[in-house]
Amino acid sequence: MTPPVIAMISDFGVRDQYVAAMKGVILAAAPDAQILDITHDVTPGDVVEGAWLLAAAWRDLPQGAVVVAVVDPGVGTERRPIGIKIRGRMAVGPDNGLLELVTRDPGDARDAEAVELTVRALWRHPVSPVFHGRDIFSPIAAVLARGTPLREVGDAIDAIVPLSIARPGRTAEGVIGHIIHVDRFGNVVTDIPKELLPRGQFTVGAGNSVVSRQVSYYRQAAEDEVVMLVNSAGHLEIAMHGARAVDRIGARRGDAVEVRAGG
Amino acid sequence: MTPPVIAMISDFGVRDQYVAAMKGVILAAAPDAQILDITHDVTPGDVVEGAWLLAAAWRDLPQGAVVVAVVDPGVGTERRPIGIKIRGRMAVGPDNGLLELVTRDPGDARDAEAVELTVRALWRHPVSPVFHGRDIFSPIAAVLARGTPLREVGDAIDAIVPLSIARPGRTAEGVIGHIIHVDRFGNVVTDIPKELLPRGQFTVGAGNSVVSRQVSYYRQAAEDEVVMLVNSAGHLEIAMHGARAVDRIGARRGDAVEVRAGG
Amino acid sequence: MTPPVIAMISDFGVRDQYVAAMKGVILAAAPDAQILDITHDVTPGDVVEGAWLLAAAWRDLPQGAVVVAVVDPGVGTERRPIGIKIRGRMAVGPDNGLLELVTRDPGDARDAEAVELTVRALWRHPVSPVFHGRDIFSPIAAVLARGTPLREVGDAIDAIVPLSIARPGRTAEGVIGHIIHVDRFGNVVTDIPKELLPRGQFTVGAGNSVVSRQVSYYRQAAEDEVVMLVNSAGHLEIAMHGARAVDRIGARRGDAVEVRAGG
Repeated sequence: MTPPVIAMISDFGVRDQYVAAMKGVILAAAPDAQILDITHDVTPGDVVEGAWLLAAAWRDLPQGAVVVAVVDPGVGTERRPIGIKIRGRMAVGPDNGLLELVTRDPGDARDAEAVELTVRALWRHPVSPVFHGRDIFSPIAAVLARGTPLREVGDAIDAIVPLSIARPGRTAEGVIGHIIHVDRFGNVVTDIPKELLPRGQFTVGAGNSVVSRQVSYYRQAAEDEVVMLVNSAGHLEIAMHGARAVDRIGARRGDAVEVRAGG
Repeated sequence: MTPPVIAMISDFGVRDQYVAAMKGVILAAAPDAQILDITHDVTPGDVVEGAWLLAAAWRDLPQGAVVVAVVDPGVGTERRPIGIKIRGRMAVGPDNGLLELVTRDPGDARDAEAVELTVRALWRHPVSPVFHGRDIFSPIAAVLARGTPLREVGDAIDAIVPLSIARPGRTAEGVIGHIIHVDRFGNVVTDIPKELLPRGQFTVGAGNSVVSRQVSYYRQAAEDEVVMLVNSAGHLEIAMHGARAVDRIGARRGDAVEVRAGG
Repeated sequence: MTPPVIAMISDFGVRDQYVAAMKGVILAAAPDAQILDITHDVTPGDVVEGAWLLAAAWRDLPQGAVVVAVVDPGVGTERRPIGIKIRGRMAVGPDNGLLELVTRDPGDARDAEAVELTVRALWRHPVSPVFHGRDIFSPIAAVLARGTPLREVGDAIDAIVPLSIARPGRTAEGVIGHIIHVDRFGNVVTDIPKELLPRGQFTVGAGNSVVSRQVSYYRQAAEDEVVMLVNSAGHLEIAMHGARAVDRIGARRGDAVEVRAGG
């Protein structure tokens, strides 16, 4: 039998015991699971960053994968614990926007479902009011990974809390988007999918710079040149070769990115 | 058959090849093992920190798990390599206090055993005098995980080296304990288990602060308020919501924590 | 059946989604694989560091393991994607020197093979010009791990690109080598294998220091003493006990290391 895949993303870091505690609970309930760490280095409490990284990884997770997502500054409050299913994968986590971005992805969403996790008999007890990752989300992920349908771990809900970020949109001159992430290499990732980009020539304004040269890969950039490209997740990215574009253009996450048609 | 769980904790970090070398040895001997990293980011040589994190994770490890624990500044000296069993899990590592804290945990310890690892035929040879993690502890963990009883990998011993830290204790006015860990969020973890806390109101003095409000979860704290709570491992913790309590109260690991009954 | 081992080394870090994307591709194609992270914290673009860490881990990987190695600043250019086999393990990655160091290791290399990866039908499509790790190397590693011979994923080649570093060599007075790595503990690792060391007494000059005392393990060093030893990978190393030798001797990677016979 194919081992189920359980992916994890959190802001717990890997210096403390929190992630190990969750994995212990998962392996006790799903001993043959393949556990795949997306990252545990989300900035503490940064739901937007977690949501983006989860969405960026989503399409590359195997069909049938179940994600445990925990960036949960409101743990213990009345924010709901939820589970979602879309495009053949599932995720469980707090209903604070963290899981919402994956549902915006274009593509077939006929299998989309969402539930509030309510079947307490499946949780680990006693439930710590500060660690639902271990006591609610991990045991439910294990149950789902072993084949229990989503509707048997909770009650169907019509909508989940949207992530509170602006969406990229078309303007008269092109597109307005935002810097959504800066990666390890200093590449500046925008929330503008390639489908929104103008045909033909365009420029991209971000931070203190206007970038006009589009390349396919990093080494096409000359030394010290700032370029743009479509990255491996299908989004517009501002980059340099062997240097950190983010430092050069003086930009930060959340800053506006203006795409203008024409050279 | 259920794959055996081998958990790892060390101060090797994940930038060098040391952890991979240990995992290579483990997988060669126990190819179906589920390897669970507790953490490899223990401060180099910090046996107390390693012991605490191991104890904090212990109860959440699956029954039957075997831990390889390596924070071992005395590697190569005559400090003994040991193995322990308690409450259904086992651990191997240096006899320098690292494994001792898990044996202090309250609860049924009727299965407790300890051995000095002496069956050299089961080690990897030649044994590097600077890497017992790879050459002694990893192969023994693999053998234990595959079902060999602890007494067949060493000679029974009556006692292991205690961890050299003070224990929390009752006083006339309440409890004296210590700051034992500061987590990624800046939460200040004490060594005071909830069983030692006074009934009714109490205050907690640590660093430059006296904390009087107990909450159940972080978001109950007002902005800038320092609170206390029982954390997910069952210990008294000093925390803030969305801020680092450790910086606010000006405390460090090892500092005394005074619990006083009364409001 | 024994699960195949797929080891990974890269400069992607673990904060972004890149490693998870690769693991998703691997697990979709080889669901029972044991994935072993060597490290993802290679300094961005530092092919020499990646090559060294890969070679240091190589001998401790299980027989049959397949390594995905991605430190690939030239991704998208005409640098070839390659696969190699030597001493019972395989690796795939860019032909930029990253895989070459493992082939220099002394020992039986009768099984050595190298191919340019050319069988595009086995790749993930469309291939992103900036992420061959996900789209070429991961799917090929999965195929190899499941038993496809190396020659069926590419065309045999006679030579791979050598890593551009000097090799250690004998001199009239002893050996000249280099600092090749500084580990988490501040130990200074040289590229001088123990087989090259003089018999009898010798001194080692590096940075601002000449070291004359050889020990077997760290705790043999006195407080503040700089010593040398043969490390767990069989190379000459300069170290201290409980302190960072690299800071004390004022050296950096690439610096010359002079071994002189005599006391």
